[in-house]
Amino acid sequence: MAQYTIKFLPDDKVATATSEETILDAAQRTGVYVSSLCGGDMICGKCRVIVKEGQVFEEQHMLLSREEVRLGYVLACASHPRSDLVVEVPVESRMEGKQILVDEDAQRFSGLAGVDLAKYEFHHSPLTRKIYLEIPPPSLEDSLSDLSRLFRAVRAHIDAPIMQTGLKNIRRLPQILRRGNWKVTCTLGQRGGTVEVIEIEEGDTSERNYGVAVDVGTTTVVTHLIDLNASKILATDATYNSQIAFGEDVITRLIYAKEEVGGRERLHEAIVGNINMLINNTVAAADVSIQDVTCVLCAGNTTMMHFLLDLDSSNIRREPYIPAATHIAPARAIEVGIQINPRGLLYSVPGVSSYVGGDITSGVLASGIYRSPDLSMLIDVGTNGEIVIGNSEWLVCCSASAGPAFEGGEVKFGMRATHGAIEKVKVLMGGEVVETVVIANEKPRGICGSGLIDVISELRRESVIDRTAKFAEPGTCSRLRRMDDDTEFVIAYADETAIGRDIAITQPDINNLVRSKAAVYAGASVLIKSLDLKFDDLQHLYIGGGFGNYLDLPASVAIGLLPDIPLEKVKFIGNSSLSGAKLGILSQEAYEEVEKIAQKMTYIDLSSNRQFMDEYSSALFLPHTDLELFPSVS
Amino acid sequence: MAQYTIKFLPDDKVATATSEETILDAAQRTGVYVSSLCGGDMICGKCRVIVKEGQVFEEQHMLLSREEVRLGYVLACASHPRSDLVVEVPVESRMEGKQILVDEDAQRFSGLAGVDLAKYEFHHSPLTRKIYLEIPPPSLEDSLSDLSRLFRAVRAHIDAPIMQTGLKNIRRLPQILRRGNWKVTCTLGQRGGTVEVIEIEEGDTSERNYGVAVDVGTTTVVTHLIDLNASKILATDATYNSQIAFGEDVITRLIYAKEEVGGRERLHEAIVGNINMLINNTVAAADVSIQDVTCVLCAGNTTMMHFLLDLDSSNIRREPYIPAATHIAPARAIEVGIQINPRGLLYSVPGVSSYVGGDITSGVLASGIYRSPDLSMLIDVGTNGEIVIGNSEWLVCCSASAGPAFEGGEVKFGMRATHGAIEKVKVLMGGEVVETVVIANEKPRGICGSGLIDVISELRRESVIDRTAKFAEPGTCSRLRRMDDDTEFVIAYADETAIGRDIAITQPDINNLVRSKAAVYAGASVLIKSLDLKFDDLQHLYIGGGFGNYLDLPASVAIGLLPDIPLEKVKFIGNSSLSGAKLGILSQEAYEEVEKIAQKMTYIDLSSNRQFMDEYSSALFLPHTDLELFPSVS
Ligand code: FES
Ligand code: FES
Repeated sequence: MAQYTIKFLPDDKVATATSEETILDAAQRTGVYVSSLCGGDMICGKCRVIVKEGQVFEEQHMLLSREEVRLGYVLACASHPRSDLVVEVPVESRMEGKQILVDEDAQRFSGLAGVDLAKYEFHHSPLTRKIYLEIPPPSLEDSLSDLSRLFRAVRAHIDAPIMQTGLKNIRRLPQILRRGNWKVTCTLGQRGGTVEVIEIEEGDTSERNYGVAVDVGTTTVVTHLIDLNASKILATDATYNSQIAFGEDVITRLIYAKEEVGGRERLHEAIVGNINMLINNTVAAADVSIQDVTCVLCAGNTTMMHFLLDLDSSNIRREPYIPAATHIAPARAIEVGIQINPRGLLYSVPGVSSYVGGDITSGVLASGIYRSPDLSMLIDVGTNGEIVIGNSEWLVCCSASAGPAFEGGEVKFGMRATHGAIEKVKVLMGGEVVETVVIANEKPRGICGSGLIDVISELRRESVIDRTAKFAEPGTCSRLRRMDDDTEFVIAYADETAIGRDIAITQPDINNLVRSKAAVYAGASVLIKSLDLKFDDLQHLYIGGGFGNYLDLPASVAIGLLPDIPLEKVKFIGNSSLSGAKLGILSQEAYEEVEKIAQKMTYIDLSSNRQFMDEYSSALFLPHTDLELFPSVS
Repeated sequence: MAQYTIKFLPDDKVATATSEETILDAAQRTGVYVSSLCGGDMICGKCRVIVKEGQVFEEQHMLLSREEVRLGYVLACASHPRSDLVVEVPVESRMEGKQILVDEDAQRFSGLAGVDLAKYEFHHSPLTRKIYLEIPPPSLEDSLSDLSRLFRAVRAHIDAPIMQTGLKNIRRLPQILRRGNWKVTCTLGQRGGTVEVIEIEEGDTSERNYGVAVDVGTTTVVTHLIDLNASKILATDATYNSQIAFGEDVITRLIYAKEEVGGRERLHEAIVGNINMLINNTVAAADVSIQDVTCVLCAGNTTMMHFLLDLDSSNIRREPYIPAATHIAPARAIEVGIQINPRGLLYSVPGVSSYVGGDITSGVLASGIYRSPDLSMLIDVGTNGEIVIGNSEWLVCCSASAGPAFEGGEVKFGMRATHGAIEKVKVLMGGEVVETVVIANEKPRGICGSGLIDVISELRRESVIDRTAKFAEPGTCSRLRRMDDDTEFVIAYADETAIGRDIAITQPDINNLVRSKAAVYAGASVLIKSLDLKFDDLQHLYIGGGFGNYLDLPASVAIGLLPDIPLEKVKFIGNSSLSGAKLGILSQEAYEEVEKIAQKMTYIDLSSNRQFMDEYSSALFLPHTDLELFPSVS
């Protein structure tokens, strides 16, 4: 087999590769980062590189535009060397790779930067806690066993009728007690009605007790490392869910898990790998020992939690859509593969059904709608659009399959809300002028969800698209043009961007976004009608989702994503899944509350719902077929 | 290295061995069983074989008598071939090897053949139980997750506010439910306040639920396989504790565990191996699948339980004698290495202190002294002599180091109470005539504890030994003779025995037995005096221990092992440790009761007790220095 050398720019690293291998293989082996969301399956189109010198053989795909091909772009995962090469990794394929986001960026995913338990009337009682004990040493008169002695000392501090600990701890106990001169620190967790001694350490380590709250999203995974004593967030990190390699959405991945040999294992390993990497990054950033991370609380949709826990997900997508479990008792984190303290616990936020998971119950907790007499609605705009309505008496929920468009998926220049993403857009003068705000004030690399909502709303207002979301004729304004058989609107010209190419939105992008918003609105609409209510009856409307810090509410109403109710009733609460997880990890009460919430929520299935299909069709317009529903959108 | 062939008789099997190997190595490899209690460490002297042809090199040891050497006996573990050999395995080295005892024999260890819960006012509620469930399948209207559906179905049968099951079960659950067409059997256990689903099986397997009660003795290990539904003992088995290889008594083994590299592991593996073998034998005998064995309840002294659970035993023998734990929550059996259902539970009977363990609390449960207003005493005659006194109000206990003599250890022809053991002895006509009863009516191979007590009592009565337990002059009677520098009394001549050699008791044997009985009596005496009581105050005296079915109470009083109180107050209750374990495994109530008993018992330490040393010295006579204490012994 022929061997070639590949020189990567701008890193100036050199790899050797066979003709069988791809440029991506060579790059990965050499430590040159090339974005590859789909893992090299020619799906994501993110692994663009430019061949500066030499010959490649490129497998067939549809992921590059003619212009890109002309400029020498190839997909690294589709291209095999046929000579020695010089390959440039362009900025848009590089940046994303720095998996460690700077704090500022990660905060954008956090929803709430701090955790204000008092606001929720929860007491500080973290899921795991450490107590320092000075234990009276044994004597002939007080010859209790080491274990009973330890338990007695713990009970002097807390009420714990039933206590237990693992054999491994009991095996180490005599040495620890004596080496520590009977001064030790116990890490305690709760499992059911039992107080469990998770860890025993010599001396006083009670200062160092950390937990990780995780939002396990279909598209992005976010972790917050939390000082459980101080209720303080020490470090945050986020990444794309590597399962994207096996499918953009939940359904594709469910099929992959079921149909592909080893598929379930690969999905499990992908998400475990993501979480472990994020935990490692945050403990490194905060200079915390992983030994002192004693619990993890994960909130995610039901499918993601199945993959994380390696449960059998095969009945989730088949009527009557039954998950293996929605409520999992705390397990050892290591049993799932999550690497924290070897005896640390993995807690999961309980869910309701196959399509309303712990991410949503967590959002209900964070939004507080479960404890107010007011009628409230929560809409979580993600790959699934989950909607909850209710008050302190009752809660009803449903889920509408929205697709990944609002998270940057299925949109040519879509990206998640991180640095370099256009998050605000203004279109002026009939489309001639575009003003943008870019996260971290960088040159833009793409557009995130909130930017996309703006774009559609602005293009509609300026009549660059019509009520059916179709572009006007190319040339109607100078930014509207034909490109690769599609019409597209240029948001930023190459010289303004970080990627040296125009950033544009295409007709297929817009179609995907409209389908997404229609699904969400239709779900909310069916839910409210099934209860014989109107949107006007709502006293609060909470919007959650991975939009970063920002969502333009008027724009969201203008495109018909959100119902047209007085804006003072609407509140954007960001990543409410993560917010709820943070409450839960810091307060046993909050965790118990979310268990109650999950039990209380009634689930309505939309999949077999005729009304939903009607509502969906009606919502494929901008803002809606029935303009009377959107009086404020003139 | 030279290679030789070794032919073993009577099996007629041929092995090859190098000059480095021992005859024992060769035998074991070839499947020829040679008794080897100490595992080949030249300690037990049980691996006697006869070299019929050929030359061996024998390492130095003191374990064979001159007579034996003359007859061609060698220790298989000490002898290396120096030519081709013909080796005979004599009957006494063979029989013991059939580790599967016939039922009849094993019953001798059982104490109580059946388990009569009603007698104890306990309800039938085994530690693990199976319930058969016909679960309504899910629908769009009833779309509870598989796990919640299962729990709901269980709760329709039993009160179980907190339920849980392991991830492994949840992972298998969807398939099992659907393959079983929603008809499944759940195995339930209890851990603390939590009901745990141990196993889920398709269809109705509720008929098949088995448990194993284990008496983990220092010298012998006994298991009973129990049908947990029917409260019936299906099979029993017993063996020597292989830890004997590392020391006859608890103290030697504690030192071994602490001082030898890998010692603790070896002790752990030895006992785990014994229990696994016994479980395998019993399930094979009863034709039960090991999958259906869902729990094991072990009762043993504190040291044995440390070795079984692989706990740190290093503080047990150092003042103030602190065990790692006396009360261990149920663990997965497999975590300890015990092979039953992979998710089956291992329960331990809780103990009190380093020297009063779960075997004794179990005996207190079985004897019933904890629930009677009468003042009772329990004496367990084993390698340790543990003594408990009390009533339904209070319980006080102590432990006296007795040594293994009553279990057949440290006695030349001592053996445990199995087939071929002399269990009753009558000596007549000044020592000229001896009558014996042998277990299973076989030719004798040795003498067990009850036989040894008889021998001393009879020899004393016939004045073959004096009050200080010294033999009369050899030749005083024809059976009394010098042999290998010691005086010995022949109990059975070679032609009457199964081993083709005389069975005798030696002066060192008698000295060991007297020391043992003195320790037990002294312990009981100190205990009763410390409470300002007299033996006459006792309303019941229960005697437990591994004596098989039989103990001659008058003989036990005559030698001063037991106090001289009216015999109608004394009751031999056999292996009370095992009896208690069987109660506990069949009744949650009984198990909870024994937990209460353990908590209630006050421990008195004899090791630093001056009075104990005095009492011990006085008790080294037959029956005692103070004859007034034994009025019935004229
Ligand atoms: S990595 Fe090449 S297309 Fe996804
Ligand atoms: S096995 Fe040979 S002396 Fe024990």
